[in-house]
Amino acid sequence: MWYIHFRSKDRRRIHFGFCKDAVTGKHATHQFASTKMLVNTGQSTPLRRLKSFLIGSPIHERHAHNERLGVFAGLPVFASDALSSCAYASEAILGVLVLGSIALASMQIWIALIISGLIAIVAWSYWQTIHAYPSGGGSYIVASKNLGEKPGMVAGAALLIDYVLTVAVSIAAGVAALVSALPGLHPYLLPLGVGCVAAIAFANLRGVRESGALFALPTYGFLLSVMVMLVACAIKFFQSPPGHQTLIAEPGAIGSEANLPLIFILTRAFAAGCTALTGIEAVSNGVPAFKKPEADNASKTLLIMAALLTVLFLGIGFFALHIPHVELFAAKNPAYSTVLSQIAAWGFGGSKAIGFFVVQFATAAILILAANTAFADFPRLASLLARDGFLPRPLARQGDRLVFQNGIVVLAAASAGLILLFHGELDLLLPLYAVGVFTAFTLSQAGMVVHWLRRKGEKHTLSISVNLAGAVATGLVAVILLVTKFSEGAWLILVLTSLIYFMFYQVKRRYDSVTRQLTNDLRPVQTVKRMSVIVLVPRIHRGVLKAIEYANFLSADARAVHVVINRESTETLKSQWAEFAPNTPLIILDSPYRSLLDPILDYVDALREAKPGEMVTVVIPEAVVTKLVHKVLQENLAAQLKVALGSRQNVIVSNVRYFLD
Amino acid sequence: MWYIHFRSKDRRRIHFGFCKDAVTGKHATHQFASTKMLVNTGQSTPLRRLKSFLIGSPIHERHAHNERLGVFAGLPVFASDALSSCAYASEAILGVLVLGSIALASMQIWIALIISGLIAIVAWSYWQTIHAYPSGGGSYIVASKNLGEKPGMVAGAALLIDYVLTVAVSIAAGVAALVSALPGLHPYLLPLGVGCVAAIAFANLRGVRESGALFALPTYGFLLSVMVMLVACAIKFFQSPPGHQTLIAEPGAIGSEANLPLIFILTRAFAAGCTALTGIEAVSNGVPAFKKPEADNASKTLLIMAALLTVLFLGIGFFALHIPHVELFAAKNPAYSTVLSQIAAWGFGGSKAIGFFVVQFATAAILILAANTAFADFPRLASLLARDGFLPRPLARQGDRLVFQNGIVVLAAASAGLILLFHGELDLLLPLYAVGVFTAFTLSQAGMVVHWLRRKGEKHTLSISVNLAGAVATGLVAVILLVTKFSEGAWLILVLTSLIYFMFYQVKRRYDSVTRQLTNDLRPVQTVKRMSVIVLVPRIHRGVLKAIEYANFLSADARAVHVVINRESTETLKSQWAEFAPNTPLIILDSPYRSLLDPILDYVDALREAKPGEMVTVVIPEAVVTKLVHKVLQENLAAQLKVALGSRQNVIVSNVRYFLD
Repeated sequence: MWYIHFRSKDRRRIHFGFCKDAVTGKHATHQFASTKMLVNTGQSTPLRRLKSFLIGSPIHERHAHNERLGVFAGLPVFASDALSSCAYASEAILGVLVLGSIALASMQIWIALIISGLIAIVAWSYWQTIHAYPSGGGSYIVASKNLGEKPGMVAGAALLIDYVLTVAVSIAAGVAALVSALPGLHPYLLPLGVGCVAAIAFANLRGVRESGALFALPTYGFLLSVMVMLVACAIKFFQSPPGHQTLIAEPGAIGSEANLPLIFILTRAFAAGCTALTGIEAVSNGVPAFKKPEADNASKTLLIMAALLTVLFLGIGFFALHIPHVELFAAKNPAYSTVLSQIAAWGFGGSKAIGFFVVQFATAAILILAANTAFADFPRLASLLARDGFLPRPLARQGDRLVFQNGIVVLAAASAGLILLFHGELDLLLPLYAVGVFTAFTLSQAGMVVHWLRRKGEKHTLSISVNLAGAVATGLVAVILLVTKFSEGAWLILVLTSLIYFMFYQVKRRYDSVTRQLTNDLRPVQTVKRMSVIVLVPRIHRGVLKAIEYANFLSADARAVHVVINRESTETLKSQWAEFAPNTPLIILDSPYRSLLDPILDYVDALREAKPGEMVTVVIPEAVVTKLVHKVLQENLAAQLKVALGSRQNVIVSNVRYFLD
Repeated sequence: MWYIHFRSKDRRRIHFGFCKDAVTGKHATHQFASTKMLVNTGQSTPLRRLKSFLIGSPIHERHAHNERLGVFAGLPVFASDALSSCAYASEAILGVLVLGSIALASMQIWIALIISGLIAIVAWSYWQTIHAYPSGGGSYIVASKNLGEKPGMVAGAALLIDYVLTVAVSIAAGVAALVSALPGLHPYLLPLGVGCVAAIAFANLRGVRESGALFALPTYGFLLSVMVMLVACAIKFFQSPPGHQTLIAEPGAIGSEANLPLIFILTRAFAAGCTALTGIEAVSNGVPAFKKPEADNASKTLLIMAALLTVLFLGIGFFALHIPHVELFAAKNPAYSTVLSQIAAWGFGGSKAIGFFVVQFATAAILILAANTAFADFPRLASLLARDGFLPRPLARQGDRLVFQNGIVVLAAASAGLILLFHGELDLLLPLYAVGVFTAFTLSQAGMVVHWLRRKGEKHTLSISVNLAGAVATGLVAVILLVTKFSEGAWLILVLTSLIYFMFYQVKRRYDSVTRQLTNDLRPVQTVKRMSVIVLVPRIHRGVLKAIEYANFLSADARAVHVVINRESTETLKSQWAEFAPNTPLIILDSPYRSLLDPILDYVDALREAKPGEMVTVVIPEAVVTKLVHKVLQENLAAQLKVALGSRQNVIVSNVRYFLD
């Protein structure tokens, strides 16, 4: 047994070894081949040129490492989702609290502190996950490796939904922010939304690195501008501390649920704030996208992200309570403006200040870019699921730009679909998918606990306790979210998750059954003794003769078959036969019903009946014409016959093509 | 050299001789085969069942003679077009004459007599044509056989257009008549028109005989009712001869062209009346559709038709001048009613009489059925043109109901298209296509003259003089028509004819070039010495092993080719190789750009470069899945690769199929 490695370095040159071993063993032919190969490289079709123009020319795997991300480039790619949540988390908490009473609003900062604690725990335990699974430790991997297939599937399903929602929701929100700044754009709400999805998808099709570079500016812009804002606020605050804060909300909103038990309102406020954690797992899914050493770079990025997130979240939370005047209107209210923008207005001294505008647009930008994180993770996750047979295989294939392009396309299509379906009004969904996120968190943390326990011998008390804490905390949040938001639509997430879970199950089952059918009791290749070959002969011409030659080569038992459609031409054929193919038997098939196919099919069937189990090869001369006009004039029996023979076992169809100008 | 005749009598049983000679030489296997054959007859797919239901089950050629027509059945099929023209010819003549003056109207009967003479000449000369060309003597055949290819093409083009126009115009006219009788149907004008086309097309797809039977009733109904009408009129006329006739026309129409020279008006009137001759050639085109002796039956039918035509035409013409009161309004005028209906009303005593209604509806019916004659002739003519390479070959194929179904479909599509295009208002076109008809007449008559002249030795003075008379007369008419109606749109016919002529020319040229390419300096089949075979191996499974077995059978120089997409699976493959295919070299193709196709194409190209002129067979294992859902999950490399290899010379693609549940 032996095999040869044919290496075609850059698709143009043929490696020496190849021609020597595999084709002829002669050296000369190799030179010949390789020079000629320069001509026909697959690159030149118009379609390919368009593709290269749009998403760049293929990247050789040997340059793969160039596509990897450092910490600086990685942060915008994987952090934009998490960071963007600062833009609304505090506001969400306040919004719930005031339903209890004005006084309750002051609880916001304490809830924010608890959530920051949660961020710390989750970040820490993901830090451990990354180091434990340097090859990519997404919730799916960790859960399936440690808790088993089913929990893995649940985590996978939850995350897929999460990512689709992230894209749809964040782009819808971003576009909404943009439109509220420039009302003239309002009629173009949907086109803008879909356009953003397409733009981000394209950027990602061009490769992780390029999209990272492209989206670095807005992310860092947001960070910087909000930081400056906080500093500005801080200075103003300590120079002249404002007195009591006047808080205005939708008429009748304040205290509307004062009768409910306090704890209930607090948990709901907490749940609302937990959206701040969404996207925190992104880094751990994307570890392989980082430069070597992946784990270190990834975990650095994770920690920086967590730190920044906490600072921004608490900072915004603090000033939300301490600027002299806050309005909490519903997004529908024309007077609505985000708490963040109110803080910015106060900090920069009025809504005319440049700083104010910068924060506004940076916020819109990062809301939109939160989608980019999903584009970085969804395809990876999908590829893992596809590799394990839970999703169609093509999703596992890495395109020639080293990205999982099919996944990118699917994500873009799904989220664009959602935007069109909900006419861009997805704000309602915003809080919902946190349920899915926290389910995934819980499963991966729990998985990590098992992971440590399995590692006997060594001591992992700390690691275990951290992940355990993470699991319990996130699990608790998941339950709280599910309960408090169930009626608001969390049930939908449940339904979707189980649907996707079911799909995983079906796809997997299908692939398994195929594998079973194809691989149970395999036996080594046998030598085929006999095979009958028939070649179709409408009349004598170059193409047909070529086909007959081919048929004769295939088997000693090759015969030509002719269907009588028109008596004269049959007679001509008979008369020519002796001259052109003396040694090939010619079989004349009557066609009393003037069908071309049926007699052939009958004959093939008769052959198969007569020689059970033996393979029958049907050689079909096929004319290849270039112009479409000519195609019309060329009857193509080949195609029809192929379809007709399609359902027959042990029948092989061979096209011997002949070319017409 | 030898060949075997495989006769499958009725598609079910296999003839004894076949299995004995062609397959194994053993008798037993034959029994086995033939009994099994009972199971898989091609007849059972749903599509086929639908087809049989709609257009009837296939007709065995041995029953072909049953499909032939006698005189009685043939008359309605081939005469309806000609007879229908009685319905409007006289009116058309009158309409022109009155433009000169009321007095001129009386000339109508003389013109009618001249036209009857013309009918006699044309009929007689076609009678000769039929006997000279018993195998079908349409203008196309006669012209091309005697005057050469080009005149033949002109005749063919003219007639094709004529038939399409006949269908469109007569159905539009018929439906219009129907709608004017039942105004409620007006909104359904177009659907009715297209529906009629479809109905007649379907009837013809079921076979000439069936459509003949189907349409016999209305045709004979028309003949009978109009005959009865004429008798009724005659009786009434001789009992109490009406005095002077009052003739009313559109205000200002009468005498509006009195200033024009008389001869001019007379010729135009004559030209208008010549529409009576359209369809008279139908029989001669359809001779093969008649029972043996074809020529005798066909010529009988022709003569009967001519006689009936003359009687009706003159009869209607006479009473058009002698009923006490005639209105000649334009069809657009709400008060419009055909002269024929006015005669009927007079003859049967009022527009309430049953007789009146019978004539009305019989007229509408025969106008519609004029289309059926075209459906009988167009496909035959198209098949002759296709056989000679002027039209795409499929038009020459006789379907399993012994009709040229493709021609029927094309005619139906073209005429339905016209109806929709002109919104059913084709009355304008009615007189135009007479130009084409008379061109065809002239060419075929002229052809006959040459035909006789070529027959040296015998005496054909009479025959020649008759055909010569016919040629001259019809030629004269053709010129008159062209001149008088040029501005009215006859130019359009010229344009169309030349377009179709050009198409014939192009198609012919293409087929000739193909034949040249395929048949110049052919040499007998050579024995192919060597051929390299590559088989694609994604991974080891039943289908792949089958493909490898096949490849090994094809050639000693068979090698397996594997593209590296995912390192692990490649390693598995390598490790399994020794066990499953120890003697087949396995070639590993790197795919630095992660493409599945390109490395294979490169390798094939390298092979072709290394072994110029040698054939390369690419064996592709192809999974066959039944359910569509499963197709989605099954990546089908085979199809893509076949397209990619399509443009390469000397590459044969073989699909070895394997079946999944």
